[in-house]
Amino acid sequence: MRREIFVGSVGIGGKHPVSIQSMTNTDTRDVDATLGQIRGLATMGCDIVRVALPAADAVGAFARIVRDSPLPVIADVHFDASLALAALESGAHGLRINPGNIGDRRRLVPVIRSAAERNIPIRIGVNAGSLEKRFRDCETPRPRSMVDSLMEHVRFFEDQGFTRIKISLKSSRVRETVEANRLAAATCNYPIHLGITEAGSGLEGEVKSAVGIGALLLEGIGDTIRVSLTADPLREVRVAKALLAAIGLRNTGIEVISCPTCARTSVDLISLVDEVKARLERLQTNRPLTVAVMGCEVNGPGEAREADLGLAFSRARGFLFRRGKIIAQVDVTEAVERLEAEVLRVLDSES
Amino acid sequence: MRREIFVGSVGIGGKHPVSIQSMTNTDTRDVDATLGQIRGLATMGCDIVRVALPAADAVGAFARIVRDSPLPVIADVHFDASLALAALESGAHGLRINPGNIGDRRRLVPVIRSAAERNIPIRIGVNAGSLEKRFRDCETPRPRSMVDSLMEHVRFFEDQGFTRIKISLKSSRVRETVEANRLAAATCNYPIHLGITEAGSGLEGEVKSAVGIGALLLEGIGDTIRVSLTADPLREVRVAKALLAAIGLRNTGIEVISCPTCARTSVDLISLVDEVKARLERLQTNRPLTVAVMGCEVNGPGEAREADLGLAFSRARGFLFRRGKIIAQVDVTEAVERLEAEVLRVLDSES
Repeated sequence: MRREIFVGSVGIGGKHPVSIQSMTNTDTRDVDATLGQIRGLATMGCDIVRVALPAADAVGAFARIVRDSPLPVIADVHFDASLALAALESGAHGLRINPGNIGDRRRLVPVIRSAAERNIPIRIGVNAGSLEKRFRDCETPRPRSMVDSLMEHVRFFEDQGFTRIKISLKSSRVRETVEANRLAAATCNYPIHLGITEAGSGLEGEVKSAVGIGALLLEGIGDTIRVSLTADPLREVRVAKALLAAIGLRNTGIEVISCPTCARTSVDLISLVDEVKARLERLQTNRPLTVAVMGCEVNGPGEAREADLGLAFSRARGFLFRRGKIIAQVDVTEAVERLEAEVLRVLDSES
Repeated sequence: MRREIFVGSVGIGGKHPVSIQSMTNTDTRDVDATLGQIRGLATMGCDIVRVALPAADAVGAFARIVRDSPLPVIADVHFDASLALAALESGAHGLRINPGNIGDRRRLVPVIRSAAERNIPIRIGVNAGSLEKRFRDCETPRPRSMVDSLMEHVRFFEDQGFTRIKISLKSSRVRETVEANRLAAATCNYPIHLGITEAGSGLEGEVKSAVGIGALLLEGIGDTIRVSLTADPLREVRVAKALLAAIGLRNTGIEVISCPTCARTSVDLISLVDEVKARLERLQTNRPLTVAVMGCEVNGPGEAREADLGLAFSRARGFLFRRGKIIAQVDVTEAVERLEAEVLRVLDSES
């Protein structure tokens, strides 16, 4: 089990569930815009937000953001150790730095001391894209040299008596990220922040993140995740939630499983599933419930039987299942409504 | 290494690259609609198409589809062994059956004999949702009982002297699918068809498929894949291509990596990346080329340096990189055009 740290009230490592992070992309100096984005992220299910503190003229705004944010705030600081100190003094719940770009390491000593006094954790993040020259140019395979760079920084923090550490190793290449994190997980037991950096935008970025982060989570590696997309941060949280749900690490209420349709499907299943998802999304329950919507008699009855509630079509006839038993034969036109009513009945009876 | 089979001209297993499959969802009796969908899938990059043969009155249409299809066609047959025979006689390049729903096993003997005479491979597909009752109700963990069911079928085929076999083990649950396929890969060396069945629709279905299929591919398990979505089959192929590209198993031409944006980003990077992707998509090259578009000076220069071509912004100034060297300083307004011109130059000079 990994060591445990706390970012505000959110525990990371130990027995804590994998938490979701995102990062604001508003101008930090614009307090209202940034807080607005953070509130949106909180509503969407984000657990921790990261905010860049790019320059001294943003410190005042950053402090106000931390004060009013509904989520714990991690300050993202690069290049300048004095900004890291300012972030801590502003009440940041966590600090993320890449020691490789801070310059002379001695500049970190007062930062580490201040974080220790305030019980604030620091993420030591190594990115393949900003690896120090001597680790970049060596013969060592990249995942190993990323871990070598990381552990050198970690030891420096440990030498200062500081162990409230979270680590991260990110690359824009999936295999490199997976291998680097496996190595790191075997090398130390600090909690691990996972992400594919610079994954890009759209489907390509989402798939890259899902594969890389997902493969590691399936191995039990990863204590908090961020899906990095060139997109609205809200989308990062949606993808992260879908990812944790896919692996069974987060209960996201009602899960709809449905078949891919084929020549056997005699109803407009794609539209039916869209309607089922739209209706069930409104129910806002956190109770885990599986609902299967299936188009034909091949896997239909089987999946419908294994789900809490199921709707399976065989030609134009629909069969409603509850906990494995057929409870009604329904017409296509009324199928979605009958299913929703049945879901409500289950939620009511068991709440 | 896995045994090798051929579906038409497409090799599966052995040293063949992982191939992409999808399935038509038109009415198989409608030859024009089905062929139209297959042509669309071929253009999108699909390698093999599966077509359901649901009933005897679709056999004539199925034969015409096989004859005119630009892709090898696998017949998807359930329940009825005589339809499997008809599919083989119609020239199908492959057959997919679930022996568990064919009834008395002896009905498979003429099917196996006919496939052997024609050198046609058969996929033996076990789905968690249609597992036979005695495997479903036992105490054995589900992944193991899926493999037990599969291997019982496999041995029956082997007893008939038939080894032109492809196997699949699908579940709508990611972990179950991953574990079942790991067990199967360790148990026999037939080529493996991967998929998460009934993954559902939208982001949830795409993420489930990416995680489950991707985790196995990263372990070297899987010879052909199908992303099953309750959606247009074209989308299945797009997701499959993104997945293989993410893992480095398929070269999909130009890869755009880009940062997630944050308060440091001083340009409208999301729009810039969209424009870059739209322009580069039109170039239709299969040469692998990495293009980085980065919003700030933290990882920007590093990623831009490692990519074949890079565009990194530092405040409002853009820097164009080619193979690690800055070749120009560019204004935001001209940046995308300059980058595209540089990509064209690289493609021209090396073609």
